[in-house]
Amino acid sequence: MADRTETPDEQMPVASRRQFLRGGSALVGGAAVSAVASGAALAESSQGSNLPPNVPEWMKAPGDPVGSQLYGTPSPFEKKVARNIPKSGDPIFWTSSRTPLQDLDGIITPNGLFYERHHSGVPAIDPAEHRLMIHGLVDNPLILTMDDIRRFPSESHIYFLECSGNPGFKKPYGKTASDLVGLVSCAEFTGVKLSLVLEEAGLRREATWIVAEGADAAALTRSIPIDKCLDDALLVYSQNGERLRPQQGYPLRLFLPGFEGNMSVKWLRRLHVVTEPVYSREETSKYTDLMSDGKAREFTFYMDAKSIITHPSGGQRLQSPGFHEISGIAWSGRGKIKRVEVSVDSGKSWQEAHLQEPVLTRALTRFRLPWRWDGSPAVIQSRAIDETGYTQPALADLISVRGDNSFYHNNAIQPWRIAADGEVTNANA
Amino acid sequence: MADRTETPDEQMPVASRRQFLRGGSALVGGAAVSAVASGAALAESSQGSNLPPNVPEWMKAPGDPVGSQLYGTPSPFEKKVARNIPKSGDPIFWTSSRTPLQDLDGIITPNGLFYERHHSGVPAIDPAEHRLMIHGLVDNPLILTMDDIRRFPSESHIYFLECSGNPGFKKPYGKTASDLVGLVSCAEFTGVKLSLVLEEAGLRREATWIVAEGADAAALTRSIPIDKCLDDALLVYSQNGERLRPQQGYPLRLFLPGFEGNMSVKWLRRLHVVTEPVYSREETSKYTDLMSDGKAREFTFYMDAKSIITHPSGGQRLQSPGFHEISGIAWSGRGKIKRVEVSVDSGKSWQEAHLQEPVLTRALTRFRLPWRWDGSPAVIQSRAIDETGYTQPALADLISVRGDNSFYHNNAIQPWRIAADGEVTNANA
Repeated sequence: MADRTETPDEQMPVASRRQFLRGGSALVGGAAVSAVASGAALAESSQGSNLPPNVPEWMKAPGDPVGSQLYGTPSPFEKKVARNIPKSGDPIFWTSSRTPLQDLDGIITPNGLFYERHHSGVPAIDPAEHRLMIHGLVDNPLILTMDDIRRFPSESHIYFLECSGNPGFKKPYGKTASDLVGLVSCAEFTGVKLSLVLEEAGLRREATWIVAEGADAAALTRSIPIDKCLDDALLVYSQNGERLRPQQGYPLRLFLPGFEGNMSVKWLRRLHVVTEPVYSREETSKYTDLMSDGKAREFTFYMDAKSIITHPSGGQRLQSPGFHEISGIAWSGRGKIKRVEVSVDSGKSWQEAHLQEPVLTRALTRFRLPWRWDGSPAVIQSRAIDETGYTQPALADLISVRGDNSFYHNNAIQPWRIAADGEVTNANA
Repeated sequence: MADRTETPDEQMPVASRRQFLRGGSALVGGAAVSAVASGAALAESSQGSNLPPNVPEWMKAPGDPVGSQLYGTPSPFEKKVARNIPKSGDPIFWTSSRTPLQDLDGIITPNGLFYERHHSGVPAIDPAEHRLMIHGLVDNPLILTMDDIRRFPSESHIYFLECSGNPGFKKPYGKTASDLVGLVSCAEFTGVKLSLVLEEAGLRREATWIVAEGADAAALTRSIPIDKCLDDALLVYSQNGERLRPQQGYPLRLFLPGFEGNMSVKWLRRLHVVTEPVYSREETSKYTDLMSDGKAREFTFYMDAKSIITHPSGGQRLQSPGFHEISGIAWSGRGKIKRVEVSVDSGKSWQEAHLQEPVLTRALTRFRLPWRWDGSPAVIQSRAIDETGYTQPALADLISVRGDNSFYHNNAIQPWRIAADGEVTNANA
């Protein structure tokens, strides 16, 4: 079959495929036996239709009709795949829910599983009543309706969004990829370039910052440098094709690609053009980091390069030695992922993983590495390198620079420990 | 502001932006007046917080807590955005539901709105009980569990999927983009290359076709040429990150990029490797086209290049003359979209639309054209050109080649009529 199976394969180098196939016999040995058995059964049951034996119950009667779900939902067998919220404590104090990264494939996060983070709950906004005011250092202050905003030229981009506290900076708690870095998701966002709307408002030359305010009960407020506002900032109204979900800022949110998530102000109602940052609650009491010298880092906008292996990952179990694909996600707020390296020997050596195309700027990038597990204990981990040349650091290296008072912007390498019985756990716990 | 607003804009050529801005004053004239008024009100209400007047009710108390939706749903204000099913007749005879293309942005179709087409309802399959049998011209017949299949190396790709009867071939009925071509959707699919699984099964040299069978009550069956099976065919288990929805073949479907949708057999249970097509019900009584000479076209695999303007489109209304962005989707089963041309003068002249990056093979491509509507009646339409050089035809040209007995593979240009009052209707109706 060599001639036939050597047809061009853009997705996996031949060497990798060979490596898989060496593991393959171990993989399907059992299945092959049962297949031979059922091959015999097959001969007996070959009554014209040549159906395999054991026609399942669900083939014996028509299933659910079309239109039983005008808006579809997942299979009941997948109900464990849900957003991850704190296991204890008073729900009134919960402020985030995490994406179940270990249960997802590819780079797109379905809207129903996109992570949540809000400071005063999710407002129920009537889009017909919603307004965006643009005032301050502009020649023509504007109050725009959603219809006004949707009449501007639009753009669509696949971008990641990540909370800056993902996870906290102390020794990372949590068992699963979702527990640890589930405050990152990725979707296709559609909206209007903020620069176009500012041009319409007649932005004045002296403007240097824009203060964005949300229409939630916290009136979440952040100051944004004018350069970002005139670069790739968007006023977003759609996510993965449909209108924003309420948890994501319906009907309108600011979106700042690559910046910490809280700056992409949800339920956006006001843009105040000014010359100084406002030093709001969310840029003083929160979203700053106390350094060892007593000074605080503030306005830490960019989410630096980061990655995590989602399979195998904490809470999963390898059923047997042999071939397993290592797969995960990588991202950088500074641009495209250039390379992801994976170690399966506690960091002694690193191999370059395959990056799934398309590799997009400021989007999740799926990486994969074929691996044969020999059944002995192992520690596996990944590190991302972005197009600026920056390499994702180890936790100890990050602490040596930031000290141990920091909470935000932990982009450290996450190692997973695999036990002899195949159980996968957080090697930092 | 010229210096500032001339910052690089990769998404829209400057000429287009200028064209928009000329229309812009008309766009926000009214809004600007109200802004000046509220600017005054603003001064009065500036009590430190500098909040604009009319703080909405939803800012006065905390909103829904985190975790009120572990799997999220759209805003109640968007409940009209749903899959489109026949308005009349007995639901038992409905066999498809359409994606509301006119309400969506970008290229990703959310899983809850992905079109449905099935022949005997949606089976409720327990993934632990599901099996895929591979038999016939293979050295090692296999029966694989979902766990077996998920251990193979995986790939992810953003692809469109389209029913070949989208719409029927006679004068297209229907008012909206969804009524007319809502049997097309696009998502990120993850699965295993079929070629890898066939290699594992020891595919024999004499194999030329594979017969795929679904585990629905129709046991939908299609014959697939071996070349496609060894090229980009996938065994898919995830869509937009999460597991397939039941309506899309949960837990496993075949996916044949660019081929008519029914061949991407859902609820896949069997692959029979043979030397002849099986001439199943779905490739004889259905999915063939009777030509004028009495012969029938069969095995019409590829979905040829096609496009449709989704905004403005049938059922929508332009509120006023001035700037409107024309936006739509284009796709080709033969590869990438190379160019989309738009006419706003009943086909007398055509302009090249802007294509939103990334332009991916066998995926939807979003196109946009800035347009100033002068308020007089107009007919607008789009035509797609793919990388093979093929150009989407007019309906009359298609009928002249296929005759008027055909039903499937209507990829004709869809014109929309815009009346003086802004109402948009199907110009073919």
